[in-house]
Amino acid sequence: MPTRVLAFDGDDTLWHNESRFHLTQTELRDLVRRHVPDADVDGHLFEVEMRNLGLYGYGVKAFTLSMLETAIQLTEGRIPATDLQVILGWGKRMIGEPTELLDGVRESLVDVSARYSLLLITKGDLFDQESKLARSGLAELFAGVEILSDKTLDSYRSLLKRRGIRPEEFVMVGNSLRSDVVPVVAMGARAVHIPYHLTWHHEHVPEDALPRDGWHRLDRIAELSGLLDSLDRD
Amino acid sequence: MPTRVLAFDGDDTLWHNESRFHLTQTELRDLVRRHVPDADVDGHLFEVEMRNLGLYGYGVKAFTLSMLETAIQLTEGRIPATDLQVILGWGKRMIGEPTELLDGVRESLVDVSARYSLLLITKGDLFDQESKLARSGLAELFAGVEILSDKTLDSYRSLLKRRGIRPEEFVMVGNSLRSDVVPVVAMGARAVHIPYHLTWHHEHVPEDALPRDGWHRLDRIAELSGLLDSLDRD
Repeated sequence: MPTRVLAFDGDDTLWHNESRFHLTQTELRDLVRRHVPDADVDGHLFEVEMRNLGLYGYGVKAFTLSMLETAIQLTEGRIPATDLQVILGWGKRMIGEPTELLDGVRESLVDVSARYSLLLITKGDLFDQESKLARSGLAELFAGVEILSDKTLDSYRSLLKRRGIRPEEFVMVGNSLRSDVVPVVAMGARAVHIPYHLTWHHEHVPEDALPRDGWHRLDRIAELSGLLDSLDRD
Repeated sequence: MPTRVLAFDGDDTLWHNESRFHLTQTELRDLVRRHVPDADVDGHLFEVEMRNLGLYGYGVKAFTLSMLETAIQLTEGRIPATDLQVILGWGKRMIGEPTELLDGVRESLVDVSARYSLLLITKGDLFDQESKLARSGLAELFAGVEILSDKTLDSYRSLLKRRGIRPEEFVMVGNSLRSDVVPVVAMGARAVHIPYHLTWHHEHVPEDALPRDGWHRLDRIAELSGLLDSLDRD
């Protein structure tokens, strides 16, 4: 069955995202180490984020709260409130940053939007994601937008059911093996993986846990149109 | 045209919500006044929340971040990090609290679900709202769930369009004049206002800004079924 619906992840697929987390995490490391020079800031932050995931979900507000918790814990409460105020400011800066598109995104979306119905399927903070989409200038290219609290087999299944899409006519494009490839292929749909140069450790999937078929990997979004043509010829 | 789709707000319409914010705000007041005895904690918190609304949106994570900012500002950075850790803990407690239904909610929803297609339309934090709905035990009564970043004339219009609902067959039930009544009536649909005993100042609407027709006020959700019958007989 030919592809009818082409869905895109947002963060690190259409616009830069992990880089803003990465930069802020570097600043957090420096800030905490002024108080505790040998602190394992990255390791502790990751633990705190994983512990909070079931309460906070994904997104910048969750990240900011986890940074504050990490800084207080690693300094055993000795960090001054003015330093924590700085961390609050980082969160606001991240939320307010302009949406910076990856290379070739606009051209590729305009191209494929002539042939497929485009969906945006992102996860994270509702308010932040809507705001990023609005500032991306891409909103009018999408027939629909879905912001999910998480991307799982169940959430993809219920999305396709709600929108009357069959897995065989659905292709998901994204940078995360865990969120954009594994659950999509498990549902019987196809996926295209376009890696980003930075990946949050939580989104990693070991090679031997990857499906053998049903997905493809591209270096750049500019190659997408050609790949889709060849898939539909098969 | 008879009512076909009956939509409910969640917070303070189906389950208690403002009371958990209210309680935590009282604790914040006590905590900050230990450092600054004459501080106007409520007034300053409201200012901070309004200033942050465009960055954070609604919900417990936004509220927690605004509480932290308020405490740091009012104490001019003198509050110890261990007190801020306590505030972080309040946020987690609020998120983890059980969903406590208002009186008569389950019975009323079961009753009206036999006659109308039910939608849940809430605003706030995606992850927190999904979690509350899951714990409410009400999810299976709804034909659809919509979590919006804000409830405005535009967001209602696009929701109805997306779902193929005409305003004349749509009734919205909620506790907020600002979010559940004013934009719904402006769209040409009908609204039912069921006040909650606490209202966040941001949701207040002056009496003279209320529409004259198109909405009704009830004391209790138990009266809803009778009101809908009488509306459809008119």
